[in-house]
Amino acid sequence: MTEALTPERILAATEDVLRRYGPAKATVVDVARALGVSHGSVYRHFRTKTALREAVTKRWLDHTTTLLEPLAAGPGPAARRMADWLTVLFHAKRRKAFDDPELFATYQVLVAEVSGVVAEHVAELVGQLTRIVEDGRAEGVFAPGPPDARTLARAVFQATYPFHKPSYAADWARPTAEADFTALRDLVVRGCQ
Amino acid sequence: MTEALTPERILAATEDVLRRYGPAKATVVDVARALGVSHGSVYRHFRTKTALREAVTKRWLDHTTTLLEPLAAGPGPAARRMADWLTVLFHAKRRKAFDDPELFATYQVLVAEVSGVVAEHVAELVGQLTRIVEDGRAEGVFAPGPPDARTLARAVFQATYPFHKPSYAADWARPTAEADFTALRDLVVRGCQ
Repeated sequence: MTEALTPERILAATEDVLRRYGPAKATVVDVARALGVSHGSVYRHFRTKTALREAVTKRWLDHTTTLLEPLAAGPGPAARRMADWLTVLFHAKRRKAFDDPELFATYQVLVAEVSGVVAEHVAELVGQLTRIVEDGRAEGVFAPGPPDARTLARAVFQATYPFHKPSYAADWARPTAEADFTALRDLVVRGCQ
Repeated sequence: MTEALTPERILAATEDVLRRYGPAKATVVDVARALGVSHGSVYRHFRTKTALREAVTKRWLDHTTTLLEPLAAGPGPAARRMADWLTVLFHAKRRKAFDDPELFATYQVLVAEVSGVVAEHVAELVGQLTRIVEDGRAEGVFAPGPPDARTLARAVFQATYPFHKPSYAADWARPTAEADFTALRDLVVRGCQ
């Protein structure tokens, strides 16, 4: 009996193929072969190679969004949630970069190709921070605007680039990284108050 | 009558030559020719091509340090000085990037080559911020540590990367750049308090 060919199975196989052959060489035919199906079956779910690469990248980025969602949703004091959100984001990115550096490098190549997917991911993360800022203002613990909550959330996101933007990954192994992160995180959370 | 061959004259000529030929092609012989001297005369001041490239890069970076020094030195309230320091830094970098994009690109190549010079430059800028943090703590306006003043200054410097690190230069032309900068600057200054 054949297991149903779901998008999730295709994406999991695509990640395996990308890991094995690298982003330059991996093809839809490789993915179909790994699943024991025709490439037509894969194309029924993802109409182009680009659509497949976008979907697998989105899946990878969504892991982080999902991990952070409970902190965005609350409950709990907003200042604590923002600090935790930034900490979980930094540690998740660091794990991705160090636990499986080849897959991380592979996704960096994909991320550069699918800028629309990345922009959407960043907008989702900034959206999560915006909800935390709004909650903190409703609590009366964060200072009222201006700037509006989304602009402040974007400032928080940009201020902490050194601890989540992949181009800084090489710095995350430094002995001072954790102390530097804590100083920056606390600076930013305090700055909202 | 020949004008004396000072290091400053050599460095000004080196910048011209770099601008004209690009960092890949510019040689010490080109610099000597532009000055109407032998290349031996240039080598008497800068013993290697690398030393010359380091010195011209340091000169370029030092313009910024010099511009910011009065704000680091004070007098004046530290919160105001930090906000001004960040604003002057952002605007100086943006001018460098947009008023003379070719020279900016040239120096980006040099900067990547002479990492020791850049590390020293960053340490000087963080040193200026450290003095402002110390003054703000002495005033009782900035919160006392931990973290120590230098760690906090480094956090301020890293938090504002998007508005002074050359790799972000393409973003500085966005219509929201000034508002985004202001939000980030105010977040950071408030975070010190």
